[in-house]
Formats: sequence, C-alpha cells, structure tokens
Amino acid sequence: MTYRIVLLPGDGIGPEITRVARAVIERAAALSGFSVRFEEHAFGGASIDRYGEPLTDETLAACQAADAVFLGAVGGPKWDKAPSRPEAGLLALRKALGVYANLRPASVHPALADKSPLRADLVAGTDLLIVRELTGGIYFGRRERTDSQASDTCTYSRAEIARVARVAFEQARLRRGRLTSVDKANVLETSRLWRETVSEMGARDYPDIALDHMYVDAAAMHLLRAPASFDVIVTENMFGDILSDEASMLPGSIGLLGSASLGEARPGIFEPIHGSAPDIAGQDKANPFGAIEAAAQLLDALNETDAAARIRKAVNAMHEAGEWTGDLGGDLTCSGAGVKLVERLEAE
Amino acid sequence: MTYRIVLLPGDGIGPEITRVARAVIERAAALSGFSVRFEEHAFGGASIDRYGEPLTDETLAACQAADAVFLGAVGGPKWDKAPSRPEAGLLALRKALGVYANLRPASVHPALADKSPLRADLVAGTDLLIVRELTGGIYFGRRERTDSQASDTCTYSRAEIARVARVAFEQARLRRGRLTSVDKANVLETSRLWRETVSEMGARDYPDIALDHMYVDAAAMHLLRAPASFDVIVTENMFGDILSDEASMLPGSIGLLGSASLGEARPGIFEPIHGSAPDIAGQDKANPFGAIEAAAQLLDALNETDAAARIRKAVNAMHEAGEWTGDLGGDLTCSGAGVKLVERLEAE
Ligand SMILES: CC(C)[C@H](C(=O)O)[C@@H](O)C(=O)O
Ligand SMILES: CC(C)[C@H](C(=O)O)[C@@H](O)C(=O)O
Repeated sequence: MTYRIVLLPGDGIGPEITRVARAVIERAAALSGFSVRFEEHAFGGASIDRYGEPLTDETLAACQAADAVFLGAVGGPKWDKAPSRPEAGLLALRKALGVYANLRPASVHPALADKSPLRADLVAGTDLLIVRELTGGIYFGRRERTDSQASDTCTYSRAEIARVARVAFEQARLRRGRLTSVDKANVLETSRLWRETVSEMGARDYPDIALDHMYVDAAAMHLLRAPASFDVIVTENMFGDILSDEASMLPGSIGLLGSASLGEARPGIFEPIHGSAPDIAGQDKANPFGAIEAAAQLLDALNETDAAARIRKAVNAMHEAGEWTGDLGGDLTCSGAGVKLVERLEAE
Repeated sequence: MTYRIVLLPGDGIGPEITRVARAVIERAAALSGFSVRFEEHAFGGASIDRYGEPLTDETLAACQAADAVFLGAVGGPKWDKAPSRPEAGLLALRKALGVYANLRPASVHPALADKSPLRADLVAGTDLLIVRELTGGIYFGRRERTDSQASDTCTYSRAEIARVARVAFEQARLRRGRLTSVDKANVLETSRLWRETVSEMGARDYPDIALDHMYVDAAAMHLLRAPASFDVIVTENMFGDILSDEASMLPGSIGLLGSASLGEARPGIFEPIHGSAPDIAGQDKANPFGAIEAAAQLLDALNETDAAARIRKAVNAMHEAGEWTGDLGGDLTCSGAGVKLVERLEAE
C-alpha cells in the first residue's frame, strides 16, 4: 500500500515545518510497514509569486487526486495588498475538497502545564476537541460593497449543520460522551436553525451523548473559567475560528497543535494551527510539534493508527524529557527537534 | 441640578444589584452636592410577565426622557421559549436610544490578581478598554428563514464605523494613546471597509494615536498571551460581544465589571456585564461590584466625575481590605457589600 500525500509547504515557516512532518511521516510509515509518496506543490503566497494565483488548477487537481493533503502555513504581510490573497487559496481549497469539518483538539500535557497562560491548577486535565464547520456560513456567503457600505451574509442549511454535527456527535462517542453546541440563538436566525437541528439529532440519534447548548460569548468565558469541563464543542465557521484560536492558547504554545479538515471522502487537509510567522521564517527556530501532530492526525485519518500512535508516543517522550524548541524554553532548533523525534521513533 | 435616572432592574439578580447601585449613586450624589430622582420600570422577562412584551412604549418613553438609564440584567430560562424574548427588548432599547458605542473596561486590581484564571505574572498590569459597536452589524441585519435554511446579514456603513471609531480614538487619547482595531479583513467585506475607514481616520485625524489592526482570531489569542499589551480595542458588534466576554474573565470575576453604552446625546445605558444568574437570584449572594462600577460609569457620563471618583476610591479600599462577596472568597452578602460601600463613601 502506497499513499499519495500532497505537501503544500506554503509561506513563512511553512517549508521548514513541512520538512519535519515529511520526515516523521516517512519514518513512521516505514516502521509500521506501509509506504508514502510525496508530491510538493506551490500554494498561497508562494504560488502567487510564481503563478500569480494562490491555488492553481494543477495544484488543486493534485490535491483532489491525493489520499491526504498536508499544509504548512499560508500568508504574510508581503501579499496583504495582492489582488488575490493567499487566504483566498485556502478558502477555495477547503471548498473544493469539501472538508466541512475542522477538528482541532487542544489538550494540556502535564509537563507543559506551567507554560499555559492559565493557572496550572485550572488548566490541568484540559482535553477538548473543537469541531468547526468549515465550508459554510459568513465565510462563503454573498458579499456586497459600495464605496460607503459593505455586507456579508451568513447562510446555513439544515443539511450543512447536520453533517458537521454528526461528525461532532461521533467524536463525542469516541471520547467522553459530552457535546457542547455553541451558537448565538438569542440573536441569530442561523443559530436558531443550528440549535434546532443539533437538538433534534441529539434526541433522535444520540440519546447516549450529553448535549448542551451555550452562547458563543459565554463559551469564550467558559473556556477560561473551566477549560477542563469541555469534551467536544461544535460550532459554525466564524465562531469556530475565534474559539479554536482562543482554546489553542491553553496548552501553552500555539506551536503544539494540529488540525484536521475532513469531508465525506478523502482527502482531508492536515495542518498545524499556527500561522506562517514571517518574522522567524528561515531561521530554523519554528516549533515543529504542531506540524508533527497534524502528521499524526493525517495518519489517523488514513486509518494508519499504529503509525499515528508511534508519533504521539515519541512526542510525549520528548515533552517528558523537556526536549523543546525555544518558544517552550528548550534549546532545540526546528530541524533538530525533527531529528530527535525520528530518533525516538526508531528507538521504540 | 437634579438628574432623572431610569432604573430597569430586570430579571434574576437584576433587582438586588440595582438596589445597591441606587443606594450608592444616591449617597455619592449627596456627598458631591447634586441630586437624583429615580424612576423604576419593568424590563425584559419581568416586563413580559406583566405586559406581554420585554420593552413597553411607556418604559421606552421614560428611558428617552431620562438623563441616564441603569440596567440590572435581563433574561433567563423561564423566557427562552417566549414568543418575544427579553433579549429582544435589550436590542430594541439599544437601537431606540442610538447607543452605538459600548465601552467595557477591564482592569486587574493587584489585590485580585490571584483570582484571575490567568497566571498572576501575565495578567498583572492589565488595563484595557473594549469599544464595541452596538447598534449595527449582524445583530440588526436582514434575517431569513425557511424550514431548511436560515440567513443573517451583516451590514456596515462607513458612517457607522466612523462614529464608533471616533469614540475609540478619543478614549485612546485619554488613556495610553494606543488603539487596536479588530476585524476579519482577510475574509469579510465589512471588515475591509472597517479597516479602510479606521485607517483613514487614524492617518487624518489621529496621527498621535498608535493604531494597529488585528484579526479577530489573533485577538482572541493575544488577550490571553499578553493582556497587558492592550490599551483600547475597537471592533464590530459580534466580535465585540465575544472578545469583551473573554476579556471580562481577566479580572477574576465577571461580577466586577460594568459597561457604558453611549450615543450622540444622553441618555446612555449603564449595566454590569454579568447576566441575570437565575440560579442565585433572590439569595442576596450576587456580587454588586459590577453594578457599582456601572454606577460610576453613569456618573462619569453625566460629567459628575467627582462622585464617580468617590465610588471608585471606596471600591478600591474594599478590594484592599478583602471585603468581598463569596465569588471572590469573601463573606459579604450583596446588600452587605452595598452597606459597606456606602459607609466607606461617608468615611472619606
Ligand atoms: C487564514 C484564515 C482565512 C483562516 C480562517 O479564518 O479560516 C485561519 O484563521 C484559520 O483558522 O485557518
Ligand atoms: C443578551 C445579548 C443579546 C447581549 C448581546 O449579545 O449583545 C449580551 O450578550 C451582551 O453582551 O450585552
């Protein structure tokens, strides 16, 4: 079995962390007895520079034909004024691959509890998963603009809500059986439809899941007051963007987390959640653990759970040994952390 | 000079904290040599129960004729299924009074730093002000709903953006001269108009203010990573709802904060930012400091800065003496904290 993985290194620190992810996937695959073929394509700002657009037809076709897509990072001030922005490529890719469910786990490793901006006693035991709707809502609605006025429309259909809610309910079943649906049903019509749809599904198909509803403003507070009380959170695109970035601070470094964007069929998109960090690009300083976690999520999605588990075990061992990059107070370089991780994979 | 203040105690703990605010305003006014006349009206759920609607014409007329409106809290599960919800009354009141700028300060008193969910070292020195646009955006846009689909539209005009930005720039001038404008200009058309408008105003009218722009997801992170780095934040209605609730956790108890909603002319609306907390309503347990801070904001807006300063001084003295309600680890009741505060006002 050979998997085809498209790598989109992208911009800023994207290429350096993608190199680490590639090496880690390659090694974990060899140890678990399957093989991978990588194909690299320009994406985001890098693609604008080369081809004048952030996502070419050729790159998209390659992604569509792949078993999985690994994305480094896109964007940077260099393209802020470009007629077509790197971010537009990302949104187009999500839409074209139909990856409507973005899964962002955030858990706090005990060895890292004192790196969190939250008090260690409060953040201890946090292990949550945000399931964000990724191909609908105000991100993809009608836009209007005149010189003096602008508008954006948020639209959701029952079917769009149901399919992402199903992913969240199923994840809750695999975890601790709790699902918090986040909306603003006291104000928004889309949120009322969201709440109705999720409630009906819960009562009909998931009586075993403890479902509750929370307003988005209350959720923003609760993530700080009692982060360990959450299991799975499901929410619409814009709220998910904000809450998942807020939650990403809990583990102490945004450099640690990965995200999986999944649709009905392969390929999914797997990426670290940090940005392109142009200020440290090319300096071999970036924290590659987010990319490594994304690599593990990618293997999980391919059902290569053995390889994914190997990677997570090696990551945990590094945390326990305090083998970190500078953002966590360690002295490893980005590539050095990658080499260490591959060594630990071998050693097991 | 006699000010007319309309009190809208509302629901849940609203009445008990409003009683404290009233006593405090009354005493501070007497000490500073002016007088107030209070008028109480039903609002929110309490008004639904009595009149079938959350905001009656009579209550609205009274608010319009007042010098200031003090609001306790509205809402509760009791009215969640009501045809007209308490929240609808609040939105209608904001719109009718034209209070387009919602000012929410959040600062961390040193005596309370260890109550914050954030690490004390990180939260120390935090003193920020969120200026939230309050009468536009997706809260007031066109809504559509069929059985299988729903939509909400977010619209902003240049004029709506400019007037709230002006409030924020002026506040920045009174404070530390920094303004962070928060948007999602990499995705939303309204955010691009927002950024354009704020940038132009900054360059033209406020060259003395250090203006920067931040995406809303980055802001949600940055509030946790470096809360003390913010001075004034300005943002649109929905983002402001989420970020100001997130920021409200920084001082350790949501019970401490007040908000002022201001328009072109009086009256403004002044309220604690906590909700109606139906679970502890009527038990004399609520923390009245948020209502007391809202009372001080009300007096500031009436230009009675001497009376406002008296109140804040007494509040600080109570913090330093650890005279708190149960949510902060103290043993005062809600009314008891009010009595203590009035005593401290006298003593000065
Ligand atoms: C770059 C931007 C368009 C994107 C989003 O808002 O979805 C990013 O913030 C993310 O969360 O992946
Ligand atoms: C009750 C609700 C409509 C309101 C809002 O979202 O504006 C509240 O959350 C607030 O922030 O004042």
